[in-house]
Amino acid sequence: MSPKRYFPILQWLPGYSRVTLGSDLLAAVIVTVMLIPQSLAYALLAGLPPEVGLYASIAPLVIYAIFGTSRTLAVGPVAVVSLMTAAAVGQVAPQGTPEYLGAALVLALMSGLILTLMGVARLGFLANFLSHPVISGFITASGLIIAASQLRHVLGIDATGHNLFELLGSLALGLGGVHLATMGIGLGVLAFLYATRRWLKPALERAGVPPRPAEMLTKAAPILAVAVTTLATWWLGLDAKGVAVVGTVPAGLPPLTLPGFDSGLWSQLFVAALLISIIGFVESVSVGQTLAAKRRQRIDPDQELVGLGTSNIAASFTGGMPVTGGFARSVVNFDAGAQTPAAGAFTAVGIAGAALLLTPLIAYLPVATLAATIIVAVLSLVDISAIRRTWEYSRCDAMAMFVTIGVTLAVGVETGILAGVGLSLALHLYNTSRPHSAVVGRVPGTEHFRNVERHQVETDPALAILRVDESLYFANSRYLEDTVMALAARQPGLRHIVLACQAVNVIDASALESLEVINARLRDAQVKLHLAEVKGPVMDRLQHTRFCRELTGKVFLSTFDAWRSLRGDAPQRGHTCGAAGPVSAGPSGC
Amino acid sequence: MSPKRYFPILQWLPGYSRVTLGSDLLAAVIVTVMLIPQSLAYALLAGLPPEVGLYASIAPLVIYAIFGTSRTLAVGPVAVVSLMTAAAVGQVAPQGTPEYLGAALVLALMSGLILTLMGVARLGFLANFLSHPVISGFITASGLIIAASQLRHVLGIDATGHNLFELLGSLALGLGGVHLATMGIGLGVLAFLYATRRWLKPALERAGVPPRPAEMLTKAAPILAVAVTTLATWWLGLDAKGVAVVGTVPAGLPPLTLPGFDSGLWSQLFVAALLISIIGFVESVSVGQTLAAKRRQRIDPDQELVGLGTSNIAASFTGGMPVTGGFARSVVNFDAGAQTPAAGAFTAVGIAGAALLLTPLIAYLPVATLAATIIVAVLSLVDISAIRRTWEYSRCDAMAMFVTIGVTLAVGVETGILAGVGLSLALHLYNTSRPHSAVVGRVPGTEHFRNVERHQVETDPALAILRVDESLYFANSRYLEDTVMALAARQPGLRHIVLACQAVNVIDASALESLEVINARLRDAQVKLHLAEVKGPVMDRLQHTRFCRELTGKVFLSTFDAWRSLRGDAPQRGHTCGAAGPVSAGPSGC
Repeated sequence: MSPKRYFPILQWLPGYSRVTLGSDLLAAVIVTVMLIPQSLAYALLAGLPPEVGLYASIAPLVIYAIFGTSRTLAVGPVAVVSLMTAAAVGQVAPQGTPEYLGAALVLALMSGLILTLMGVARLGFLANFLSHPVISGFITASGLIIAASQLRHVLGIDATGHNLFELLGSLALGLGGVHLATMGIGLGVLAFLYATRRWLKPALERAGVPPRPAEMLTKAAPILAVAVTTLATWWLGLDAKGVAVVGTVPAGLPPLTLPGFDSGLWSQLFVAALLISIIGFVESVSVGQTLAAKRRQRIDPDQELVGLGTSNIAASFTGGMPVTGGFARSVVNFDAGAQTPAAGAFTAVGIAGAALLLTPLIAYLPVATLAATIIVAVLSLVDISAIRRTWEYSRCDAMAMFVTIGVTLAVGVETGILAGVGLSLALHLYNTSRPHSAVVGRVPGTEHFRNVERHQVETDPALAILRVDESLYFANSRYLEDTVMALAARQPGLRHIVLACQAVNVIDASALESLEVINARLRDAQVKLHLAEVKGPVMDRLQHTRFCRELTGKVFLSTFDAWRSLRGDAPQRGHTCGAAGPVSAGPSGC
Repeated sequence: MSPKRYFPILQWLPGYSRVTLGSDLLAAVIVTVMLIPQSLAYALLAGLPPEVGLYASIAPLVIYAIFGTSRTLAVGPVAVVSLMTAAAVGQVAPQGTPEYLGAALVLALMSGLILTLMGVARLGFLANFLSHPVISGFITASGLIIAASQLRHVLGIDATGHNLFELLGSLALGLGGVHLATMGIGLGVLAFLYATRRWLKPALERAGVPPRPAEMLTKAAPILAVAVTTLATWWLGLDAKGVAVVGTVPAGLPPLTLPGFDSGLWSQLFVAALLISIIGFVESVSVGQTLAAKRRQRIDPDQELVGLGTSNIAASFTGGMPVTGGFARSVVNFDAGAQTPAAGAFTAVGIAGAALLLTPLIAYLPVATLAATIIVAVLSLVDISAIRRTWEYSRCDAMAMFVTIGVTLAVGVETGILAGVGLSLALHLYNTSRPHSAVVGRVPGTEHFRNVERHQVETDPALAILRVDESLYFANSRYLEDTVMALAARQPGLRHIVLACQAVNVIDASALESLEVINARLRDAQVKLHLAEVKGPVMDRLQHTRFCRELTGKVFLSTFDAWRSLRGDAPQRGHTCGAAGPVSAGPSGC
């Protein structure tokens, strides 16, 4: 309940030292250089003016430094969220209109409010219901769509589409109209960026540069491409020859903006805002956790929701767009030695400087250059080996992944993620509705009991022991009824059924009622129901229930006690349900 | 795959004997006598003409005899489903119009199609996600609403409302206009039915009648009330004095009807049809299973869906309304000695006879009589003790129950059931997202390991053993990451973490990735990750994974082996992951 929990800045600011300041400043400079072209490019990807990308990389970073718990996460526009922004906003307003800009602000505000509320309500666990195969499939498919959508800028042709097939068809139709100078720049930058990724780092390392600086120099290649192609365009007057350029960008700090409160627009954007929030949160938290673990630090997912939420709210009031923690830039920040979120605040100062001073220079920046940087960045998101690994490991998970990829590519991003989440939740519910259980028999000469189908064990026609391998909830309790009654129907001489409960952590009210039903039905069929190895807290709760009073059989401490007593080999060792008195401290709350 | 599975009639018809015929005929006569007033009353409750109730008790019973798997379930209109029908149809058409009738037919058809498709797709498990407290709360609340809605007929006043408060308010306003003759009949029948329930059965038993016939005579009381009040109304000409009567009912067999295919209407009724299907199915299956168990028979829930679905489709083509298996009448059918579903088909013949011959007599039947039979029937659904029991056993379950009851009473049936299901699923997902686990230590001098927080055990500052008490799914795997990393952050001298997996039945692809992440993060923190007590099928799957190749530690057969080896007390007993070769037959399918 301390303020430190809600204002994580209080955890590190009081002890801030000059040494830390040096590290943070260095990291901030490096991240700024990397973030300038990325901000411009992702604004383009979202269909927004380039300065929006810069604006979204200023106030949100400062706010995250106050509310975020990761020491090294670098917040700003990222590829997948920008694609989702374009898809959502494109449905309510045409690109290039003030309404389009306004809708992007509303989306950032809604996403910010959703994230903040989820954080305050401690609903971070909801993100767990996005399974890894669904996220991985979604990101791969998004990467392919983004790459396809940027090809038109690289080739200088007109092409549009909401899914991969529309995009590719539109591109194919437009191939006749390729603009050669644009294509020259686009493919040139693509080749340059690919080459630096592939060869620059090894070359630098061979030349004696240590791995980390080599990595960071490689990551700075886009800014070089931006500088060179901008200069070339200006020098050769390529913009007059038809090469699309970014054009005049207003110089200055972010404007104060007020997102609209049109309820129709809000309800149209709600699902998109929810999905952007959750996808952004999941991406951000996994980067944050990975980096924190390397230094044995911790992040608090619920407070992260607040951090990202307030950052998005800040973006919506300062002319920005939806933001989240980016993977590549956070790794650079970490490797460059950032120690605290102050590095993010310093980066914001750097970007603000760029917005004030560098914008006149950006006017001649070719759009093809930005598109090429996007393509190179997102193709690294496409992870084919993950598909193969998932397929080899689990057909179920692979199915969810294929559906996510297929629907995302064929229909669109929102439908794709919803289909994937829906299918994986349905499979999860299906799986949890059938609890693992096994009829067990005694390993001869021991006190051990094993699955009768897998081992040579002793059994008794009058006695069946069912080991229940999971907690009993409403979702699976009826299946237990079926299992027990099938057992009774199969074994006509049966007189006793023992439920061995060593793996049962919880029995909820539905499962309790199912146990009552099982007990009553078995009584009608002249079969006694017994329990064995019930855990302390579970027994505490059962103690005073009608089930306990009506139980036809006994409660045994061990399965072996049940076996001996019920076969008459030993004196009765079980006790009547409820007779043992409270075992532990009593039931916990809800 | 045999036809017997899809046409359960083939299981009993070939061996049908004269003795069985006798039993079935007797049961059919008794159920017919009980079903005539019930059919009329539940049609009234649904806001439909009385003959619709009779029609819905003919064709559906014959079809259920072919496709149903319960030997003794009696299908027809039931109280809760009739209430839900009224609520749904009332939203699309005014009562008394042809559109209202048409919408009821569409509702029966949609519900029939939904049930049949669910059966064919074997989705019966979906019903498991209605928890017992939610169903029980919903039925209690429905009973109260039904009783309140019928009070106006008993008192002879006008009153309407969609929820309990509207109904009670409207009743209070109308109290001045009570129709005395109607109230005389209504309260008289109420008193008579209450008295027979309370005193007739004991009296008959004291007079030497065996319990079962006594029970059945008691259940036949409503038909007596119907006969007496109808005669009295005709004799005294009460209808002319303002007592509402059923009026002219067309004599004849059910008409052939074609439900409309208006897509707007279908989409308006879809949610209602889905809820009616699932609620009807759950009620019906629980009755069916209870009765089947008494004779050690089995029912197949997925085939039951088909049986109920085809019955509803039959109802929609023969002028009926949504139907399902009724509790009271199925118990009567069972107690009267029904042996096969043929009893249901014979009941259909009886009801058809009533529709042909008895309808002229029904014209003078007072509506107040039917309303009184409904009130007595539904008040037995109100189960206050279940509320108390649930509250005492589990606050979580009680919360879901209270929300269901409160929303159903205050808003309406559909919203109520949706709120209950939504809340219980959310609580379920929340619970499954936090797997039970415990840090364990060695019970001194033994090979047993117990929770360090509950027992005096040996621990080691360089070694932490985490017992994982549940299967690892995407829903809970990130929580495991948190748990393990928190453990590592808490114990600075830690060198080894062992996951004891005796309760882990499944590790899905997401959880595998979480394990990879845990392994990598622990490696960065110079902590080795080990596994112990991994089950055979789980190990089979892990065998060839990247996680297994990259695992920094060993796999131990037992927790004690891990303890001894990692403390250096014994020679290394663990093996490298993947080195053991396949343990069992290999991974199962999806």
